[in-house]
Amino acid sequence: MSEPVYFLGIDGGGSKCRARLVSKNDELLGCGVAGSANILEGLKHSTSAILEATYAALDHAGLPHALVKNLITGIGLAGANVPELRQSLTAWEHPFKTMHVASDLHIACLGAHGGGDGAVIITGTGSSGYSKVKGVTSKYGGHGFPVGDKGAGAWLGLTALQHGLRAEGNLGRQTMLTGMLMEYFEVTDLLPMVLKIARAKPSEYAKLAPLVFDAAENNDDVAIEIIQDGAGYISRMARELLKKSPPRLSILGGVADRLVHWLDQEVASKLNEPLGSAEEGAVLFAKQSLNHM
Amino acid sequence: MSEPVYFLGIDGGGSKCRARLVSKNDELLGCGVAGSANILEGLKHSTSAILEATYAALDHAGLPHALVKNLITGIGLAGANVPELRQSLTAWEHPFKTMHVASDLHIACLGAHGGGDGAVIITGTGSSGYSKVKGVTSKYGGHGFPVGDKGAGAWLGLTALQHGLRAEGNLGRQTMLTGMLMEYFEVTDLLPMVLKIARAKPSEYAKLAPLVFDAAENNDDVAIEIIQDGAGYISRMARELLKKSPPRLSILGGVADRLVHWLDQEVASKLNEPLGSAEEGAVLFAKQSLNHM
Repeated sequence: MSEPVYFLGIDGGGSKCRARLVSKNDELLGCGVAGSANILEGLKHSTSAILEATYAALDHAGLPHALVKNLITGIGLAGANVPELRQSLTAWEHPFKTMHVASDLHIACLGAHGGGDGAVIITGTGSSGYSKVKGVTSKYGGHGFPVGDKGAGAWLGLTALQHGLRAEGNLGRQTMLTGMLMEYFEVTDLLPMVLKIARAKPSEYAKLAPLVFDAAENNDDVAIEIIQDGAGYISRMARELLKKSPPRLSILGGVADRLVHWLDQEVASKLNEPLGSAEEGAVLFAKQSLNHM
Repeated sequence: MSEPVYFLGIDGGGSKCRARLVSKNDELLGCGVAGSANILEGLKHSTSAILEATYAALDHAGLPHALVKNLITGIGLAGANVPELRQSLTAWEHPFKTMHVASDLHIACLGAHGGGDGAVIITGTGSSGYSKVKGVTSKYGGHGFPVGDKGAGAWLGLTALQHGLRAEGNLGRQTMLTGMLMEYFEVTDLLPMVLKIARAKPSEYAKLAPLVFDAAENNDDVAIEIIQDGAGYISRMARELLKKSPPRLSILGGVADRLVHWLDQEVASKLNEPLGSAEEGAVLFAKQSLNHM
């Protein structure tokens, strides 16, 4: 009697790592979630999150952890577009039956367009763009924080904090955003805030993004300028992707729902609803990889 | 016979920690240098740099390390404006006879104005301003990287990298700055650069600052805009300090010499040459602290 085989799709993003466990016949068996899996933060950081999400999905499915060795696993990982980092993960002595690694962009694109051609923009903790059209792929952004990833969560949070701190001592404009930041950090002075954010991770900055949108929707000048600057960059990325003539273009990620209202009208009118999640794309990727073996 | 007593002044900056050892009669006996001492990077990080610079100064003076217990030490430390961090240093079981801790700004101000009233702007790895006039002190900036410290070395380096990376894929303007950055990192493509700068320290970003000035002096549009934005912030800080009517105003730090050409004419015309270094200020502070005991 042959061992049972399952497919596991992993979306290893900068803020959350999500696992989706399905049967050979595509029945959903279980889901799991862990923290950031960004490999720019280190290999151990990624593999811990991947395993935590995997075992959570097995638990959710009511299956024993020992079944990990039966999983055909597709992983899309933030940072895996960097060849050296991707190689460090493929060299990992993983517990799976097989492991197939792609960038988080590739699996998100597969998921959003049902495995077909298309383009995606991901605006979660970081920002990046990807298209796959007739076998040709293109990538934009996704260079990591704080050098890249303009327009997405961590950039919005950091930029808001920079403006908020400058407001001290009349070196920047004092708007309601400053007060909202102090309330968020439960401080009454700007200096204790500095302590709380010293050495903050990108995902911690990204938690401030909803507050920046709240301020902008309440007509805060500084918040509006920050979001317009970030959204302008994302619109430019969308226009570059549209030049590749993808049949569909989707915007995904934690800040996408709110950012979409700030994109150029022309870009916004060309967006398509994603057909499935990045985890579903990771499952599709695992199945496609198996067919190619 | 009483033990010999020496004075040690320490300037613990974000890129370098400098020690100055003098006799009771103010003769210079020795100098020492170590790496970054910024206490925002951790207490151990600071104390290691302080001790390394101290022992280097004792070596330079031809004095045994055991004499560390005879040193009356004044320390000006980046990050020591944050009360919690300053307290963590004063709780340190230091090897000195006595240790007196101030912010790096306070000792720089003492050094620049011979122990008298005045104001300083420091633009090294980070940027900050300080004035001491008739017993009243004011502070500006110095909130740490990447949230604060606009206009100084780490900010200039990071901002240049952000623009350079965005130039990829037509998401930003491609100017000579991009090529200069790639040459600096010895890469021919932007992506390997991302790996080299992942998790870079502020002092590593600051090393790029001379390159940004070089590009601007060669009429690179992007570099000019970056420096004008940063210099505008520093000019604003100078105007706030001048409102406190300091008898003198000096600008110090690693990027000061080049940044000064980009400040507002009105501000630049009011700058005074510093009379002495921050280490000399730290020695003055040690002596003043002793008189107050």
